[in-house]
Amino acid sequence: MRIAQVAPLTEAIPPKLYGGTERVVHWLTEELVALGHDVTLFASGDSITSAKLEAPWPRALRLDGAVRDPNALHMMMLEQVRRRCDNEEFDLLHFHLDYYPWSLFHRQPTPFLTTLHGRLDLPEHQPVFSTFSEIPVVSISDSQRRPVPNANWVRTIHHGLPADLLSPIATKPGYLAVLGRIAPEKGVDRAIRIAIRADIPLKIAAKVDRADQDYFDQVIEPMLHHPLIEFIGEIGDQQKSEFLSGALGLLLPLDWPEPFGLVMIESMACGAPVIAYNRGSVPEIIESGLTGYIVEDETSAVAAVHQLEELDRSAIRARFEERFTARRMALDYLSAYRSLVAKATPPRIKLVSAE
Amino acid sequence: MRIAQVAPLTEAIPPKLYGGTERVVHWLTEELVALGHDVTLFASGDSITSAKLEAPWPRALRLDGAVRDPNALHMMMLEQVRRRCDNEEFDLLHFHLDYYPWSLFHRQPTPFLTTLHGRLDLPEHQPVFSTFSEIPVVSISDSQRRPVPNANWVRTIHHGLPADLLSPIATKPGYLAVLGRIAPEKGVDRAIRIAIRADIPLKIAAKVDRADQDYFDQVIEPMLHHPLIEFIGEIGDQQKSEFLSGALGLLLPLDWPEPFGLVMIESMACGAPVIAYNRGSVPEIIESGLTGYIVEDETSAVAAVHQLEELDRSAIRARFEERFTARRMALDYLSAYRSLVAKATPPRIKLVSAE
Repeated sequence: MRIAQVAPLTEAIPPKLYGGTERVVHWLTEELVALGHDVTLFASGDSITSAKLEAPWPRALRLDGAVRDPNALHMMMLEQVRRRCDNEEFDLLHFHLDYYPWSLFHRQPTPFLTTLHGRLDLPEHQPVFSTFSEIPVVSISDSQRRPVPNANWVRTIHHGLPADLLSPIATKPGYLAVLGRIAPEKGVDRAIRIAIRADIPLKIAAKVDRADQDYFDQVIEPMLHHPLIEFIGEIGDQQKSEFLSGALGLLLPLDWPEPFGLVMIESMACGAPVIAYNRGSVPEIIESGLTGYIVEDETSAVAAVHQLEELDRSAIRARFEERFTARRMALDYLSAYRSLVAKATPPRIKLVSAE
Repeated sequence: MRIAQVAPLTEAIPPKLYGGTERVVHWLTEELVALGHDVTLFASGDSITSAKLEAPWPRALRLDGAVRDPNALHMMMLEQVRRRCDNEEFDLLHFHLDYYPWSLFHRQPTPFLTTLHGRLDLPEHQPVFSTFSEIPVVSISDSQRRPVPNANWVRTIHHGLPADLLSPIATKPGYLAVLGRIAPEKGVDRAIRIAIRADIPLKIAAKVDRADQDYFDQVIEPMLHHPLIEFIGEIGDQQKSEFLSGALGLLLPLDWPEPFGLVMIESMACGAPVIAYNRGSVPEIIESGLTGYIVEDETSAVAAVHQLEELDRSAIRARFEERFTARRMALDYLSAYRSLVAKATPPRIKLVSAE
């Protein structure tokens, strides 16, 4: 299939820094190429891909101090994609740009799909999805859909990681882990209290965005001086296998409706169970008693910590391989692509030659 | 003519606070209605207009703390306009939304025009205007065009004010004036030095945006303690006639390529001459020796201050009435609309009835 992946220009594909959407687009693109498809990736010129790269701008915009108006370049990119459709160059377009392409691509024949990567519960979402109720969209969890049930949901496709990106390393797990970003909605303060109440060391591998620096300084930093707590800052994919393999479990005491939460499947890829609050996608990702525990508050989280050793780490890795690889994600998307292509192509009467 | 004016949702039309684009859209809309046209204004629901108001969102987005993603609502508004075009409800669309509508409306038959309200010299503008080189655009000064000469410029249409919005009030002018916004590119520090060197009082009626607070605190505030300098903060249209009528002249020592500069014609409307640096639109607006003086630096500005009383204030008001009223602006736009409509309508052979 001739597939266009159209990514944000904000970060490179894969991202040089943090960027969940851009990592997922990268993994999906690589798997689609590996599966033999003809993939064109529209993304910033510092992207690295096995697909054909079409770069409307040389650098990821978040790192390009000269660009004041990222929207201008996104609109230009959409025009470029649209012109390629005039030449019927693609069988399917897969957008990762929210509602930006909808008005334009709704009125041309190449079928297209949009994965919604963010939360959908803001006040502006209701009228936007009412206006665009026919546009086919993919959710990254069922829970993400709740605020806008009237959208044209094609299906939920959970994210996946390359099977060999992270893997269990033989070691004796000895601490609880927090991985990702420190922000009020991530509940790192709760994670610290849970670890202290459970009397087990906690290692925090997380970055602090500039927007969250005040929160970090005022709320989190004063909590880091307890002897059980260790703050080790941001880590990359190369360090995650060791970090997660050494963890008794990952703590994810979320305080927002996380639309997916890649960190949960990163943990599972290393065989580490997850203790997560019952928010957003959590009950779809974590199987309580198998790959972790779903909890409601700090008390039940502390109880769950003491049950972590009952879980079979190789079974957790096995569930990751069954449910959350990039290959599975790519196959799910291909199935969605094919049904859209089939719907878009009017059935033709075949002339059967007499020869 | 059935005309749609499509405004940003950021501020109401007219704006509750500062907003040059929104003021111009308001004045243009009112004049078009007064001239007997059937005008529909797409704008936030707190707008006040003589046209038919179509409000995709009830409140101006800058004042609506609940909306995190203004682009979502702008894209929705464009879809709503586009659907009205399917019903051929408008003869012409006039957009004030930069490049946002171009891909979508380029591919439908209702003719449309975009007024570019901002600077066009940012690095992202080159590829954007190369991509959209056929889209008809109006500049608000000839100088605004310079960075993108290859755009499809229909014409320059200078802004205009309602003739009776501001007017000369009988008084004895006794000070120099600065009016508008305090920001590095506005050169208020230069204005202060010019007034002190000329030994004439300076009144500064200007607002300070949050983004410019540090600049104000560090650069401007320490300069305000001189006995000749008076800072009176932001003023509204009701106070401008008195403020400008009392001014010997307006100082505008710009440090950026101002695309238009409404303050110059506000000053002229009150008969007050303008001393402006030779930047951006200035030589198109100010006629040196008639409506003010165009200067190159502080030395020539001080010299010009001493020549202000040679200028005839009633002649300045007369030039305002000739060149910069909203009525003149509306007639210019109508002429541009008509030529676009004529181009879009294929000539038809008329059947002449024998009756």
